[in-house]
Amino acid sequence: MRIRVITAGGTIDKVYFDDASTFNVGDPQVGPLFKEANVTFDYVVESVMQKDSLHMTDEDRALIRARVAAAPENLILITHGTDTMTATAAHLTGLPGKVIVFTGSMVPARFRQTDAFFNLGCAVGALQVLPPGVYIAMNGRVFPATEVKKNRAESRFEPKA
Amino acid sequence: MRIRVITAGGTIDKVYFDDASTFNVGDPQVGPLFKEANVTFDYVVESVMQKDSLHMTDEDRALIRARVAAAPENLILITHGTDTMTATAAHLTGLPGKVIVFTGSMVPARFRQTDAFFNLGCAVGALQVLPPGVYIAMNGRVFPATEVKKNRAESRFEPKA
Amino acid sequence: MRIRVITAGGTIDKVYFDDASTFNVGDPQVGPLFKEANVTFDYVVESVMQKDSLHMTDEDRALIRARVAAAPENLILITHGTDTMTATAAHLTGLPGKVIVFTGSMVPARFRQTDAFFNLGCAVGALQVLPPGVYIAMNGRVFPATEVKKNRAESRFEPKA
Amino acid sequence: MRIRVITAGGTIDKVYFDDASTFNVGDPQVGPLFKEANVTFDYVVESVMQKDSLHMTDEDRALIRARVAAAPENLILITHGTDTMTATAAHLTGLPGKVIVFTGSMVPARFRQTDAFFNLGCAVGALQVLPPGVYIAMNGRVFPATEVKKNRAESRFEPKA
Repeated sequence: MRIRVITAGGTIDKVYFDDASTFNVGDPQVGPLFKEANVTFDYVVESVMQKDSLHMTDEDRALIRARVAAAPENLILITHGTDTMTATAAHLTGLPGKVIVFTGSMVPARFRQTDAFFNLGCAVGALQVLPPGVYIAMNGRVFPATEVKKNRAESRFEPKA
Repeated sequence: MRIRVITAGGTIDKVYFDDASTFNVGDPQVGPLFKEANVTFDYVVESVMQKDSLHMTDEDRALIRARVAAAPENLILITHGTDTMTATAAHLTGLPGKVIVFTGSMVPARFRQTDAFFNLGCAVGALQVLPPGVYIAMNGRVFPATEVKKNRAESRFEPKA
Repeated sequence: MRIRVITAGGTIDKVYFDDASTFNVGDPQVGPLFKEANVTFDYVVESVMQKDSLHMTDEDRALIRARVAAAPENLILITHGTDTMTATAAHLTGLPGKVIVFTGSMVPARFRQTDAFFNLGCAVGALQVLPPGVYIAMNGRVFPATEVKKNRAESRFEPKA
Repeated sequence: MRIRVITAGGTIDKVYFDDASTFNVGDPQVGPLFKEANVTFDYVVESVMQKDSLHMTDEDRALIRARVAAAPENLILITHGTDTMTATAAHLTGLPGKVIVFTGSMVPARFRQTDAFFNLGCAVGALQVLPPGVYIAMNGRVFPATEVKKNRAESRFEPKA
C-alpha cells in the first residue's frame, strides 16, 4: 500500500508568526503527523502550494488536477483548506482508477487541541477501502465530494440538503 | 450513521497515578477525543471493562462478544489493548451484518505525542466503508483481523508472514 | 500569598482566526493554565483589555496603571503582548509597595508547543521573591523593566546594550 | 547567568511503560523543555540518576550532594521525584554560596496536560532572585526546603503545620 499525499495548504498547516502577529500557511504537517502515528504504509508527500483556500484560483485547481493525473499512485490523499475544498474536488472528476480523498482541519495541527490528527486518520482509513472516486473526509464522515458542503457558521461539513 | 463504541481498556485509556507512581487504565478517552474532533455522526460509548489486555480472560472475551451481539447498531468500534487485540477479535467471528473494527494505541491518548487520535480516526474512516467482518485498524493500515499480528519488538502491527 | 493577574491580551491569549475572521485575542489563558499547574496560592484574574499590544494606546496604559494602583494586592502579574511590553512597563513606575512582573509568550498558549506555561511559571516564581519594582520575565530571565528590550528579529528579550 | 541542572529522575521524566515493561524513568526532559521555552541563559544538564524517588537511598543523596558541591556554578536547579524531594533537600544544607531550587511534577512532562513546564519556569524564576539556600518550587509556590511537605493524598506541596 502506497499513498501520494498532495498538500495544498489550508488551516491544517497554519503557523503563528510572532513578528507579524498573524497566522500563515507553513510547511505541510502531514509528514510529522504520520511519523507521530507510526504509520507503516509507504507514502510520498508532494507540496503543490501553500495557500489559504479562500485565495485559490482555477489555475491552482488545474495544477492540482495535473499533479493527481501524473501520480504513479492510485491512492491520493489531498490536504486542503476547508473553505473551497468542494470546489477543488469538483475539478478532479474523471480520473479513472484514482481514489482521491480530501481532508483538512478546522484548527491548525500545531494546536494542542485540534481535529487534524483525527481527520487525517479518517481519510487514510477510508482511502484504502473506497472504490475509485472523489471523497471528502471531515468531522468523522466520509462523503462523496458532490454530496457535501461546508456549513461555515457551524464550522463543520454536512450533507447537501 | 450511528456507531456503537465498546471500550475494553488498554493503553489508549491509561492515566498516570502519582500516588502509586504507575500507569493504570482510566476512563474511556474516545468520547473526549470525538468531541475534540467535532464528529457529526451519532454514537454511544459503552464501557465494558477497563483492563490492560494482557490481563483479559476468555470470560472477558465472551462478554465483549455478547455486548456486540446485543448491540442494535451494525457499526461497532472497539477500543482495546494492543497485546491481545487479535485474540479478542478471533472471538467475534460469525456475527452477521456487523462491521467490527478494533483500534487502540501504543501511547496513551493523554500524552502530548500519541497515535490515539490518528488511530481512532482511521478506524472510524474504515468502519463506515467496509463490508461486514472483523478488522483491526492500527499504524494507518486496516487489516482483516485474521491476517495481522502485533510485532511487539517493533511496537507495530504487521501482516502475518 | 495572593496574586492579582491583570490581563491585557497579546499573543499568549491568541486564538486561531482564518482569513475571513476578524477577532484574534481570545479569553485570558492564565486561569486555565494555573488550574492545569494546580497552583495553591490565591489569585484573582482581572481582564482589562484583549489587545494585540501593537494597538495599545497611552489611554490603555493609563487604564492599566489605574487598575494596578487600585488593586488591594501587592503582587501583580501582568500578561501582555510582547511588542510593547516595555512601553507599558514604563508607565508603572512609582507605585510604592507593588511588585509588578510582566510576562507573555511568543507562541500562543493554545499551541501544542509553546513558551506560555514556562513564562507564566517563571513570572510567578520571581514575583513572590522580588522586592517592589517593575520587572519583565521572558525567555527564562527576569529583568528590571528598564534594562530590557525585545529583539524582534530573534523573537526574544535581551538586556539593553 | 548560568545554571547547572542536576536531574535525578522522578515523575517529570517518566515515560510510558506497559505491563510487560521494566523501565519507567526516561531521559531528562529539562533540556527539551528549555528549548521549547527558548530560554536565553546558559545552562548545563547533568543527569546523576534516573530513579523514582521512592527508591532513592542515602548513597544516592550523598552523590547528589557531591555533584552540587563540585559544580562550578552557584545556581543549581534539581529535578527530582516529589515523594522524597524534601529528604534529599535536607542533605544539601551547608553549601555556602549555592542557591539550590528543587522542582519536579505530579504529571509527566510528556503528557498533554502537565504541570512540568510551569514548575520548571517557577523554579528558574525564583532561582535567579533568591539568596543562597535550599528551596522547593512546587504548585506555584517557592518554599524554604525545611518549611514544606508533600500532601500525598492531595497531590500537592503545603507548608508544614
